[in-house]
Amino acid sequence: MSTTTVPTTRDTPWRATGGTDLSAEQVERIDRWWRAANYLSVGQIYLLDNPLLREPLTRDHVKPRLLGHWGTTPGLNFLYAHLNRAIREREQSTVYVAGPGHGGPGLVASTYLDGTYSELYSDITEDTDGLRRLFRQFSFPGGIPSHVAPETPGSIHEGGELGYALSHAYGAVFDNPDLLVAAVVGDGEAETGPLATSWHSNKLLNPAQDGVVLPILHLNGYKIANPTILDRIGQDELESLMVGYGHTPHWFEVADGSDEPFESIHRRFATLLDEVLDEIAGIKARAAQEGVDMPRPAWPMIVFRTPKGWTGPETIDGKKTVGSWRAHQVPLASARDTPEHLAVLEQWLASYRAEELFDDEGRILDDIRALAPAGDLRMSANPHANGGVLLRDLRLPDFRDFAVDVPAPGSGAVEAPRVLGQFLTEVIRRNPDNFRIFGPDETASNRLQAVFEVTGKQWDAEYFSAEVDEHLVRAGRVMEQLSEHQCQGWLEGYLLTGRHGLFTSYEAFIHIVDSMFNQHAKWLKVTNHIPWRRPIASLNYLLSSHVWRQDHNGFSHQDPGFIDHVVNKKAEIVRVYLPPDANTLLSTYDHCLRSRQYVNVVVAGKQPAPQFLTMEQAVAHCTRGLGIWDWAGTEEPGTQPDVVLGCAGDVPTLEVLAAADILRRELPDLKVRVVNVVDLMRLQDEREHPHGLSDRDFDTLFTTDRPVIFNYHGYPWLIHRLTYRRRGHANIHVRGYKEEGTTTTPFDMAMLNDIDRFHLVIDVVDQVPSLGSRAAGLRQRMVDARLAARQYTREHGEDLPEVRDWVWPDSGDTGTDAGGPQYDASAATGGDNE
Amino acid sequence: MSTTTVPTTRDTPWRATGGTDLSAEQVERIDRWWRAANYLSVGQIYLLDNPLLREPLTRDHVKPRLLGHWGTTPGLNFLYAHLNRAIREREQSTVYVAGPGHGGPGLVASTYLDGTYSELYSDITEDTDGLRRLFRQFSFPGGIPSHVAPETPGSIHEGGELGYALSHAYGAVFDNPDLLVAAVVGDGEAETGPLATSWHSNKLLNPAQDGVVLPILHLNGYKIANPTILDRIGQDELESLMVGYGHTPHWFEVADGSDEPFESIHRRFATLLDEVLDEIAGIKARAAQEGVDMPRPAWPMIVFRTPKGWTGPETIDGKKTVGSWRAHQVPLASARDTPEHLAVLEQWLASYRAEELFDDEGRILDDIRALAPAGDLRMSANPHANGGVLLRDLRLPDFRDFAVDVPAPGSGAVEAPRVLGQFLTEVIRRNPDNFRIFGPDETASNRLQAVFEVTGKQWDAEYFSAEVDEHLVRAGRVMEQLSEHQCQGWLEGYLLTGRHGLFTSYEAFIHIVDSMFNQHAKWLKVTNHIPWRRPIASLNYLLSSHVWRQDHNGFSHQDPGFIDHVVNKKAEIVRVYLPPDANTLLSTYDHCLRSRQYVNVVVAGKQPAPQFLTMEQAVAHCTRGLGIWDWAGTEEPGTQPDVVLGCAGDVPTLEVLAAADILRRELPDLKVRVVNVVDLMRLQDEREHPHGLSDRDFDTLFTTDRPVIFNYHGYPWLIHRLTYRRRGHANIHVRGYKEEGTTTTPFDMAMLNDIDRFHLVIDVVDQVPSLGSRAAGLRQRMVDARLAARQYTREHGEDLPEVRDWVWPDSGDTGTDAGGPQYDASAATGGDNE
Ligand SMILES: Cc1ncc(C[n+]2csc(CCOP(=O)(O)OP(=O)(O)O)c2C)c(N)n1
Ligand SMILES: Cc1ncc(C[n+]2csc(CCOP(=O)(O)OP(=O)(O)O)c2C)c(N)n1
Ligand SMILES: [Mg+2]
Ligand SMILES: [Mg+2]
Repeated sequence: MSTTTVPTTRDTPWRATGGTDLSAEQVERIDRWWRAANYLSVGQIYLLDNPLLREPLTRDHVKPRLLGHWGTTPGLNFLYAHLNRAIREREQSTVYVAGPGHGGPGLVASTYLDGTYSELYSDITEDTDGLRRLFRQFSFPGGIPSHVAPETPGSIHEGGELGYALSHAYGAVFDNPDLLVAAVVGDGEAETGPLATSWHSNKLLNPAQDGVVLPILHLNGYKIANPTILDRIGQDELESLMVGYGHTPHWFEVADGSDEPFESIHRRFATLLDEVLDEIAGIKARAAQEGVDMPRPAWPMIVFRTPKGWTGPETIDGKKTVGSWRAHQVPLASARDTPEHLAVLEQWLASYRAEELFDDEGRILDDIRALAPAGDLRMSANPHANGGVLLRDLRLPDFRDFAVDVPAPGSGAVEAPRVLGQFLTEVIRRNPDNFRIFGPDETASNRLQAVFEVTGKQWDAEYFSAEVDEHLVRAGRVMEQLSEHQCQGWLEGYLLTGRHGLFTSYEAFIHIVDSMFNQHAKWLKVTNHIPWRRPIASLNYLLSSHVWRQDHNGFSHQDPGFIDHVVNKKAEIVRVYLPPDANTLLSTYDHCLRSRQYVNVVVAGKQPAPQFLTMEQAVAHCTRGLGIWDWAGTEEPGTQPDVVLGCAGDVPTLEVLAAADILRRELPDLKVRVVNVVDLMRLQDEREHPHGLSDRDFDTLFTTDRPVIFNYHGYPWLIHRLTYRRRGHANIHVRGYKEEGTTTTPFDMAMLNDIDRFHLVIDVVDQVPSLGSRAAGLRQRMVDARLAARQYTREHGEDLPEVRDWVWPDSGDTGTDAGGPQYDASAATGGDNE
Repeated sequence: MSTTTVPTTRDTPWRATGGTDLSAEQVERIDRWWRAANYLSVGQIYLLDNPLLREPLTRDHVKPRLLGHWGTTPGLNFLYAHLNRAIREREQSTVYVAGPGHGGPGLVASTYLDGTYSELYSDITEDTDGLRRLFRQFSFPGGIPSHVAPETPGSIHEGGELGYALSHAYGAVFDNPDLLVAAVVGDGEAETGPLATSWHSNKLLNPAQDGVVLPILHLNGYKIANPTILDRIGQDELESLMVGYGHTPHWFEVADGSDEPFESIHRRFATLLDEVLDEIAGIKARAAQEGVDMPRPAWPMIVFRTPKGWTGPETIDGKKTVGSWRAHQVPLASARDTPEHLAVLEQWLASYRAEELFDDEGRILDDIRALAPAGDLRMSANPHANGGVLLRDLRLPDFRDFAVDVPAPGSGAVEAPRVLGQFLTEVIRRNPDNFRIFGPDETASNRLQAVFEVTGKQWDAEYFSAEVDEHLVRAGRVMEQLSEHQCQGWLEGYLLTGRHGLFTSYEAFIHIVDSMFNQHAKWLKVTNHIPWRRPIASLNYLLSSHVWRQDHNGFSHQDPGFIDHVVNKKAEIVRVYLPPDANTLLSTYDHCLRSRQYVNVVVAGKQPAPQFLTMEQAVAHCTRGLGIWDWAGTEEPGTQPDVVLGCAGDVPTLEVLAAADILRRELPDLKVRVVNVVDLMRLQDEREHPHGLSDRDFDTLFTTDRPVIFNYHGYPWLIHRLTYRRRGHANIHVRGYKEEGTTTTPFDMAMLNDIDRFHLVIDVVDQVPSLGSRAAGLRQRMVDARLAARQYTREHGEDLPEVRDWVWPDSGDTGTDAGGPQYDASAATGGDNE
C-alpha cells in the first residue's frame, strides 16, 4: 500500500477567504509566473538550443521540425498561474484538466515551474542545461509527446481526442468530497457531442458526497481554422445556455487588442476566482450541514474569454494572428527558414523578459516558484492524478458463495447477470466509497437490479414521487445517464483517480465509445512504461444485451464487433471473456475486479439459459480459459476425436451442445470433442498475447488434422485471425454472426447466421471425411429440420417447442412441460424496464 | 430518371394561415385519427388475431412473444395526427423524423391510416384481413422490425441507436429550401452527446437556401427505467437551455392525470402548431426578401410535455404505468399468461372504440382518412424520404483533366488531397445545390482548401471581421462543426434525401462515428432488399490525416482501425481504397462519387509525397484494383519471382519502393515483384466480396509458393483475415501498424512498427530461402542502418537526409539538394490551419 498522504485530508477544505486584496507584489508574481510559463512553452515549440537567449538567436537554435500548438497555451498557463495562487491560500486539493490537451507545452511548463517535473524526470534539471533538454525533448524523437499525455505530471486527461474534459473531471470528483477539479473546456471542444452533454453531469453529482468540478470555458473564439459556435452566439444566448445547463456563469473577458495593463487583468481575474471559489465554499458549507439530501445548487462556472494565441505575435506575414485561428498551431512556421520569421520569434521570446525570471544558472527565481503551493498540493503532484497511488484493493466477498447450483450440466434456466448482480450487491456493501456501476439507463435491462437492495441510482435533479422515482437516491453507487460517452468518461475519470467500477451497456451500442476505449487503452499502454505512474484498476465492461437476443429491437441492435475493435489494441492491455453461464461469469468477474491496467470485455447474455458448470468446474475452466467438456463429447480415451466442436459465447455454446446431442443419438460411433472457450485470447499464439496457448497445447486440444467446427459469438473471421498461425488452421471452420438479422425469434436469428444446431450437424457431416455418404440421410433431415423450424416461427411467432425447450439429455431437466426450464413470455423476451 | 413530382415545387410553400378556428368536427377528426393510430399500435404489439375485437379477446388472440415499445407511441401518433391537419391546410412538404425510433408501431399505424402502407405492401390490405396481417407481422418472424426501419414508409431515420434525430433532420433540409422536417426528439435521447450538440445545427443553416427543422422535444419524462434529466430541471432551466440553443421555445403540456377533455387538448395543440408554423412562415417570408444574407433567426421549437404511455392503462398490477417509465416497453407482459392482464388489455383496446373508426369491412372511415394530406404530401409518401427517387447524377468534370504530371515513376512531391481538392472545386462549380463537403474543422487541414475558390464554409452565427472570418459564407458547400457526429449525421440526412457528399476526417477520430457508420451500413443493406426504396448516393470518407503522419499529435492520433471496423459489414456495402498517389486518388474518388449504396472509405495522406503513376496508368491500376509495378521490380519474363513485395497505402508503398531500390542494388540477381493494392477488397476471395480476386488471379499475382512481404497501412492481421483462404497464405508475411507510436519523425514511426525499408529488406533476407547466409552482410547493414537512422533523429530531430530525400532512382528527381522534392519544414510537418 502506498504511503502517500492525500491532500484531501487537510483540516479545512473549501475555505472561503472573502477574497484577498492582492499586493502589487502578489500580482507581479502571478504575472511573472505566467510570463515564465509562456516563455517555456514557446521555447519548447521552437528552440533546440540557446534556451535563455543568452546569445542572439540563429536558425541553428531553431528546431528543424516545428511541432505543437501555441494558440490555447497562454490561456491554459494563465489559469494555472491563478489557480496556484488560490490553492496555496486555501490549501485546496485541486486537479487540473486541460480539455484542449494539445496545449501540452503549457502544462509541461507549469509543472516544471513548480518543481514536480524535475523531481520526476531527473534529467530535466533546473538549470540552463535542463532548460535546453526541456525544450529539445518536446515533440522530439525519443522525447515527449505534444499533448497533455500520461508523461505530463498531474494529467489524467490527454485531451488529444476532444470532448471528454468534463466527463473525466466529474468521474474524478465522485466520492472525493474534498477534491476540486478545474476543468478547462475548449470552445471548439464544446462543439463535440460528448462535451455538449457532459455539462449535465451536475445533475448526477451529490454536493456532500462528491467533490466539485469548476468548468472554465476557454472562449478564445477559434478552433483550427474557424471561429467557434459558442463565441458567435452573443453573450445573452451563451449566458442562457450555461444557465440552462444548471450553472451560474461568471464572465471574464479580455478583449482582443485591449490595452488594459496586465496588472489590472490579473487583479480582475484573481477577484473573480476568489468569488467563484467562495461561492463553491458556500455551497460546500451548506452541503456539510444539510448532508446528501441537499438539493442541487447552481454550481458556478467561468466563461474565460481571451484572445487565442494571447501574448504571441499580433500579425505574421501581415496576417492577424493573435485573436484568430491562425494562432492555433505553430504560428511562425518558417522560423528556421526565413530571417523575417526568425526575427519575430526572437522578439516574441524576448517579450517575456526571461532575464527577470531565471537566475544566472537558469533556475526559476524563488519568488516565482513561491506562487505554487507546496508538496502534493501542487496540481502537478496531486496524488488523485496518479490514481494508482491511492488505489485500495476492493474488499471482495467470496464469489463462490453466489454459485448457482448445477446438479447436472445443462440444467436450470438462469439469467447469469442477475446472479452477478447478487455478487455485486455484496461488493457494493463492502466498498461503499470506491466502487460504482455506470450504465446508459440499462442497469435493470442488463439485469443487475439486485444491487438496488443496497444502493440506488444517484440522482440530484428533481424528484416527483416514490411511485416513479424507484431506486433513485441523492447519493448512490449506480450512475445512469442515457449517454454511453458519459458512462465511459465518468468511469475513466473514476478509475484514473484510483477507484474501481464497471460499465454495462448493450453490445451493439458500446461501439459508441470505440474511440474513447482507444484513448484509454493507449493511456494504459503508455503508463505501463512510466515508472512513477502506478497501476490503476481495470476498466470492466459487461455486455449482456448481446447480438443474439435483441428480441425487442432487431437489426440495429445486432453488432458483436466491439470485440474485434478491442483486440486491435496492445495484447498486454486487452482481455475478452465469453463466460457461458452464471458460475463462469462470477469467476470471470471476480478476476476482472482484481485486475489492474487492463480493459476487460465480458459478454454474457441476460436471458434465462441453462447452466453447465458447478462452481468448482467453473473455477477450473476459467483458470484454464478453455477446456474440453468431456460430459458433452463422445471421445474414447486413448483415441483421437473425429471432429472437434468448439464454442465461445453462451448462445453458440448452447447450439453446439444441442448439435452434440443430435450427433450422439444419430451417429453414436462418431467421436466428438466439445471445447468451450471462455478467455478468447487463449486461442492466440503465446507470442502474440500473454494469455495465448502454446502451439503444443493448442494442437493437443484442437488436433492438427481433424475438422474443427467452431461456433463463435461474434464475426467469424476473428477466430481465423486469432488462429491463422496454428498448424491445424486449414481445418477450422468457423460459424458466427455474419450480419444477418432482424426482429425475430432467438432460434431464427441463429439460423439466419448458420450457427444453429442443425447447421452445425450439417457442417460435421460435410467436414468429417469418414462420414461420406453414410450420413446423407441425417444431413437431409437437418436441412428439413431448419425449414420446419423456420416455418414454425412464421406460423406461431415463436420457436418450435422442441427447439426452445431442448435440454441437455443428462441434465435431469425435462423441458417446460415437466418442470424444466421455465421461460415465461416476458422473461424470455427480455423486457427491459421491469 | 424518376418522374416523381417533388412536392416542394408547389406554388406557395410556407403559407401562413393566421391560425384556423377548428370546427368541432375537425377536432373530432383529429381525435379519431389519434385513437385509430393508438389502437393500431396496441394491436400490433399484442394481437395475433381478432383485430377489431369483434369477438371477446382470448389468450389465443395474443401474441406468444410480446415485443415492442408502447410508451413513446401515443405521443408520436398525436404529433403525426396534428401535423397531418396542418400539412393539408398549408400544402407544406414535410418529413417526419421520430427520434425515439422504437415507436415503430406508431409510424406503421399512421402510414397505414393514410393509405401509403397498403400501396407499398399490397398484402396489408385495408380490410379486416389486412389488419390481421398488419398486427401479426409486427416484430414477428418473417414480418417487420419493431423500429422505424427502412421498411417503414416515410422514414429516413431508424432511431434504434438514439441521438441522431436532429442531425439527420438538418441534413435533410440543407438545400431543400421548401422542406419542413418535424423532428421529434426523445427526452432520453436528448441526454446523448450527439443529440445534445445537434441543437447547434441552427447556426449552420441558411434561412433562404435551406429548409426548416422544427424540433419537438418529446418530454414524456422517462426513458427505459429512469426519469429524464430535461424533465427534472424545472421549466426555467429548460427554457434557458432552449433559448441558449438559439430557439424560441413553445410550451405544450398535458399534465399526468389531467382530466382536461381531449377536445380541449387538441384545440390547444392545434392552435400552438399553427402559431409555430406561422412563425416559421414569417421567418421564411423574411428570408425570401432578404436572401441568403439574412441573419440567423431564433427558430421556434416545441416542448411537448405529455405523459409517457398516454391513454394506456393507468396502473398495472397496482403500479403506476401511464406517466412513468413502466410504460416504456410492453406494459402488460403477461397479457397471454394471466386473465387479469388479458382483461386489462381488452379494456385498453376497447377504450379507443374501434367500432367508431373502422367500417364493417375493417376499413378506416373516410372522414378519418381525410385528415391526411393527399398523394406525395403525405409524410409517409414524401419523396424526400425516399431520396433515391430524387437523386440526380452529379455533373462530373473529367478527373483526367486534373492529372498530375508524372514524367517518371517516383518523381515529384505532391499533396494528393490538394489535387483532389481541385477536382472537387469543379464538382462544386457544376453542382451548386446537391453536393456538400462535411468536416470537423479540418477541410484545410485535410488539404481540400482549393474548394474555397468557389465556395465557403456555411456559417450563420455571428461575423466579426474579414481578417478572421476567412472563407466563411452564409450559404456554402462546406459544413464544419467540431463534431464528427454532426458531420456524419448531416451527411447521412443529406444522402438519404437524394444528394451527394463526402466527409473528411482524421483517420483516428473517425472511430467516433463507428456506431453511426454501423447503422448507416445496416440501413443500406436492408434497403437493397426493399424494392420501393431507390438507391442513394454512397457515403464517402476521405481520411487524409492518417496514422503515419501525425507529426503534431502523436499516439492518440494514430489509429488505422476504422478499416477493420468497416469490413465487418456486408461485403455488398463496403469498399476500402488506399490510393498511393494523386492520380490514383483522383480516379478512385471519381468512381466513389458515381457509385450508389456503398460506404467508400478512402485513405490518402496529405503530406508531400512522390507520384508513381501517370493518369493512364492510374486509371488502369484503379480499374484492376491492384497490379504489378514492373518498373519497380526485377522480374525476368518467363520466370517466377523470388519474392513478392506487396503494399497498400501511401507510406507503406514508399517504403516498399525504397526497399526494392536497396535490393536491386545489393542483390542484383534477386527477382523481386512489386504489387500495389488500391482496392483492399481485391485481396479477398471472390466468394466473400464482389470485388474479390479469383484464386487463380490471386495465385498468379502473389504466387503460391514464394514469400510475400506485404507492407500494409493498417493493422497487419487484416491482411491475414482477407487472405487466409488463399493457397499461399502461409507464405504471406505482413507488416503494418502494431500500435506503437508517439510524436516523432515519419521514418521513426515507420521503424517503430517495422514497416520501414530496412526492415523490409531484413524480412526478404529472412524469408527467401535461396539467400541463406549469402545475404548476412546485407542483413547486418540493414540492422545498422535502422540504428543509425534512429540515432540521427535523436540528435537532429529530423530524419536522415538520405532517408527523407530518397527518391526512386529512375524518377529523374535527385533529392532536395539538387532541385528534387522540396519538403519545407511547415509543409512536411503538416501544419493544419494554413
Ligand atoms: C474529436 C476531435 N476532432 C478533431 C480534432 C482535431 N482538432 C485538434 S485541435 C482542434 C480545435 C480545438 O479548438 P478548441 O477546443 O477551441 O481549442 P483551442 O482553441 O483552445 O486550441 C481540432 C478540431 C480533435 N483533436 N478531436
Ligand atoms: C444510444 C442508445 N443507448 C441506449 C439505448 C437503449 N434505449 C432504448 S429506448 C431508451 C430510452 C429512450 O428514452 P426517450 O428518448 O425518452 O424515448 P421515449 O421516452 O419517448 O420512449 C434507451 C435507453 C438506445 N436505444 N440507444
Ligand atoms: Mg478555442
Ligand atoms: Mg422519454
